Amino acid sequence: MSYCVGIRLKSGMVLASDTRTNAGVDHISTFKKMFTFGAEGERVIFLLTAGNLATSQAVVNRLRRELRQDDRQHLGNIPSLSEAAEMVGRYATEVAYQTKQMATMVQEGGGFGSTFLLGGQIKGHGMRLYLIYNEGNSIYATRDTPFFQIGESKYGKPILDRAINYESNLDDAVRATLVSFDSTIRSNLSVGFPIDLMVYKADSLTLPAGRRITETDPYFYSIRSQWSQGLLAILRGFDTPPPDYMG
Amino acid sequence: MSYCVGIRLKSGMVLASDTRTNAGVDHISTFKKMFTFGAEGERVIFLLTAGNLATSQAVVNRLRRELRQDDRQHLGNIPSLSEAAEMVGRYATEVAYQTKQMATMVQEGGGFGSTFLLGGQIKGHGMRLYLIYNEGNSIYATRDTPFFQIGESKYGKPILDRAINYESNLDDAVRATLVSFDSTIRSNLSVGFPIDLMVYKADSLTLPAGRRITETDPYFYSIRSQWSQGLLAILRGFDTPPPDYMG
Repeated sequence: MSYCVGIRLKSGMVLASDTRTNAGVDHISTFKKMFTFGAEGERVIFLLTAGNLATSQAVVNRLRRELRQDDRQHLGNIPSLSEAAEMVGRYATEVAYQTKQMATMVQEGGGFGSTFLLGGQIKGHGMRLYLIYNEGNSIYATRDTPFFQIGESKYGKPILDRAINYESNLDDAVRATLVSFDSTIRSNLSVGFPIDLMVYKADSLTLPAGRRITETDPYFYSIRSQWSQGLLAILRGFDTPPPDYMG
Repeated sequence: MSYCVGIRLKSGMVLASDTRTNAGVDHISTFKKMFTFGAEGERVIFLLTAGNLATSQAVVNRLRRELRQDDRQHLGNIPSLSEAAEMVGRYATEVAYQTKQMATMVQEGGGFGSTFLLGGQIKGHGMRLYLIYNEGNSIYATRDTPFFQIGESKYGKPILDRAINYESNLDDAVRATLVSFDSTIRSNLSVGFPIDLMVYKADSLTLPAGRRITETDPYFYSIRSQWSQGLLAILRGFDTPPPDYMG
């Protein structure tokens, strides 16, 4: 599994992914699941992926190769992020379908699908964040639904539900995202460090450098330990359960 | 979906289930998912269930009917909880298999399986807690793994991971269980109030009265709001993310 979060706020976007990928217990490796495309001052596109790594990488490679083909539409010239989301969805479905066709010649079953988060901004447009499904279709974030998760999303959802709304600032969104990853990594072995983090400021049209956060990163460590101690302190601060709860 | 938690501590057991069951959006109803069997001073058996409600209810009905049949083994006279877990697993598999056989005459597919938590104590034995799978086999809680969850388990797992160990006291286990339900109910529409709660004190061999907790229960409400405010206070208390996190 993987875990990725994308948050689109009024003030900008926060995107984060883990880097673990596994194909059985013997095959735990670290791969990048976050990719950026863009041109300073003109467009910034983030792509995050979960699911079948071979499918995801084939899609990303195709998107990158096409950047050099000026006679066709690609992420470097596509006029809108909605069309970009359609393109990624189409490629993902094609790759997964082809792989499945090949696989069924050899064996039954197989999960070849990938999901994607695609977000960013193109000059003259607002910021957009899309969740692209396995089947190639997609939905986009709204004021009411400011964040999406893909991959192993449930462990880390409660804190995002509580802490994030469209008016949240980027600092708070980063803090909540790190806590969301901490909860997920603690509860599920298939999600692991390092974490790739990108923060994009609304209308900056600048590709952020991004930050790779390792397990020993001092800021992450301080958040992790404050969170853990804080939670236990809240629990201990609760009143004793009433007698009729206890028997 | 459903959500059930069973915790076996040195000092006793905590068992809790939600009561929502749904078969499509039009069919959200409240059903009891926790059942008790036993005889004061001799045996106490708790059974919690998630999955296909028809299968779960058929299993419980069979277990109850058999209590009147003195010439055979049933939950009222079975010598150990390990044999009880095997019996429940066997019945569940039989019911699911029969239902599937019937269903395939009409249509393809269908999820007829149920999972169970079975816990309690029989005089002369220690407390036991079993997780019985869909396939009829089971595992039991140990000192290292003091709790099990069935149903919609991921949202509420991080807090149990952090707060519960074998030496925890029953009060703390109840508090963590309530927070685990709160997180799950907030994040997933298919898990809902009221919550059924049972707390069993080790070696008491007494069937607890149990407590049904509604959404407006004052103690649950106080926990819910303290938790929510406390979490946001911890988040706000974190240092500002370093500059290289933010661009």
